[in-house]
Amino acid sequence: MKPDVLGVIGLGAMGGSLAWHAVRAGVERVVGYTPVPAEGAAALKAGAITELVGDPQSVVLRSDLVVLAAPPAANLQLLGKLEQQIKQQKTLCTDLTSVKLAVVRKAAALGLDRFFAGSHPLTGTDGSGFQAAGAVKYREAVVYVTPLPEGEAAAREIADFWASVLEAAPVFCDAADHDRMLAWTSHLPQVVASALAATLARLGPKAVTYGPGARDTTRLAASSPEMWRDILLLNREAVLEALAGMEDELGTLRSLLSASSAAELLGWLEKGRTWRRRLSE
Amino acid sequence: MKPDVLGVIGLGAMGGSLAWHAVRAGVERVVGYTPVPAEGAAALKAGAITELVGDPQSVVLRSDLVVLAAPPAANLQLLGKLEQQIKQQKTLCTDLTSVKLAVVRKAAALGLDRFFAGSHPLTGTDGSGFQAAGAVKYREAVVYVTPLPEGEAAAREIADFWASVLEAAPVFCDAADHDRMLAWTSHLPQVVASALAATLARLGPKAVTYGPGARDTTRLAASSPEMWRDILLLNREAVLEALAGMEDELGTLRSLLSASSAAELLGWLEKGRTWRRRLSE
Repeated sequence: MKPDVLGVIGLGAMGGSLAWHAVRAGVERVVGYTPVPAEGAAALKAGAITELVGDPQSVVLRSDLVVLAAPPAANLQLLGKLEQQIKQQKTLCTDLTSVKLAVVRKAAALGLDRFFAGSHPLTGTDGSGFQAAGAVKYREAVVYVTPLPEGEAAAREIADFWASVLEAAPVFCDAADHDRMLAWTSHLPQVVASALAATLARLGPKAVTYGPGARDTTRLAASSPEMWRDILLLNREAVLEALAGMEDELGTLRSLLSASSAAELLGWLEKGRTWRRRLSE
Repeated sequence: MKPDVLGVIGLGAMGGSLAWHAVRAGVERVVGYTPVPAEGAAALKAGAITELVGDPQSVVLRSDLVVLAAPPAANLQLLGKLEQQIKQQKTLCTDLTSVKLAVVRKAAALGLDRFFAGSHPLTGTDGSGFQAAGAVKYREAVVYVTPLPEGEAAAREIADFWASVLEAAPVFCDAADHDRMLAWTSHLPQVVASALAATLARLGPKAVTYGPGARDTTRLAASSPEMWRDILLLNREAVLEALAGMEDELGTLRSLLSASSAAELLGWLEKGRTWRRRLSE
C-alpha cells in the first residue's frame, strides 16, 4: 500500500531517513513526532516531514500507516500506548526494531493482528539522530517483515509499502527465526566491535596511529549505546550463545599461538579468509 | 635519499605499489624480482618496474637502495642470503615487514648497521598479489622506521627516501616498542576479525544476508593467511597479551548480559563508543 498520510514516530537516523525518502517518493503528507524538539525542527526544515505534531497519538490520528522508529524499548512501550487508537482508526502500523520476537509477542498480546506486522530493514549507520539520516539508504535494502499469528493481510500491505514507496526488498520471516539469525549476523559483530574498542580503550597504547584495519573492525562500536543495550537485552539468550562461539574461537587461537603451531594457525586463518572472501563475491 | 636505481624484492600488493609509485615519482630505474613469474610480467606490463631480474642477488647488484617486500619469514631469510652482497656493494636496504624486532635483531647480528634500517608503512589491503597493488597508497601514510643499534645514518637516509620519493610520513621508532604497540593497534584487530569470521563460518546461519556492519567487522579476515601466520608467530608474546585483554572484555560482557545488568551494559557500550568516536575526530 502507498499511504496518503504516513506517520513516523521517532525522527532519528532511521525514522528521519524513512520520512525523507517517503516525501521524495511522492507521499503527500508525512506526519512526524519526536520527543527531541531540535530534531523535529531539523526534520521540518529539511523537508523530511510535512507536519510536526506534539504527541504519538496525534500521529496515529492523522495517518493511514504509522512507523514506530523509536529505540527498541520505547517502541515496545508505544505499542501499549497506541493500541486503542490503532484499533479505533484501523491504522496500519509497523516498527523498525532490530529484534522482532518481543515486538510481535507484545503486538499479538494486544490483539493487533489485523493492524500490525514487524519490520527490520537491514540498513543503518553508526551515527545517531536526525543529522545522521542522510547515511541511511533504504533502496534495495533487505527488509525482514514478521507477521503476527493472524496477521498475514497486514504483513502483505506493509511489505508492499516497503517495496512500492521505499524501493526496498521485503522478505517474510518468522520473528523467532529472525532473532536467532540476527544474533549471529548482526548482534555478534556489534558486541565484538564494542569489546575490541573497550579493550583498546582500557589497555591499548595512548596517542598512537590506528590504520584503516583497526578503524573498520571497531566502526560499529560508535553506534548508539541505548539502542544496543535494548537489542542485547531483548535477544539475550541468542546473543549469549553466539558470544560463546566467539569465545571458543579465541580459545582455539590462543592454543595454536601458545604452541606455535604454524600449520594449524595457517589453517585457522584460511578458514576465516575463505568465509570472508565468499561474502564479497 | 632519492635512489638512481631502486630495487624491489617481492612484487605483491605492497612491493608492487611501492615500485609503481617510485617510477611515477621519477626514479629512473626500478629493478624487480619475484618468485612468481606471472607477477613479474604483470609488473613490467603495468610499468611498475623498468627491469625484471631472475634472482634477489641481481637486484642488489644493480641498486642503490633495495626494499625487501616479501612475506615476513621470507624477508628474514633474504637478509641472510643478501648480507655479503649488501656489504660489498654498500647498498642501502630496508624491508616492509609488519613486525620489526626480529628483523632488526637479525640485521644487527649480521653486522648490517651501516646499511639497513627496518620500515613498516601503515598501509595495506586485504587483497594479495600484484593485482591488489592499486589499493595500497603510500602518500601521507605513517611509516615506522626502526634503526639498528649503530644504524642512525642509514635510518636517516631511508626515512628521507620515504618522505621524498613516496611522500609518506616517516616516524623513528624502537623496534621492540613498535612490536608491542602493533600487537594492540593492528595484530589484535586482525585476529579478532579472523576469529569472528571463523565463528560465523562454523556456527552462523547459512545462505543469509550480512549487512555492512558484519562486512566491515570481518574485512581483515580476507587478508593473506601466510603473511599473518608469520606476523603472529614473530610477535607471539605481545599478541597473546593483547588477546587476553580481549578475552577478559568478552567475559565482562558475558557477566553483564547474563545478569541483565542494563545500566552497566549501557556503561560498557559507552566506553567503546567514546574511544571509537575519538578515533574518528
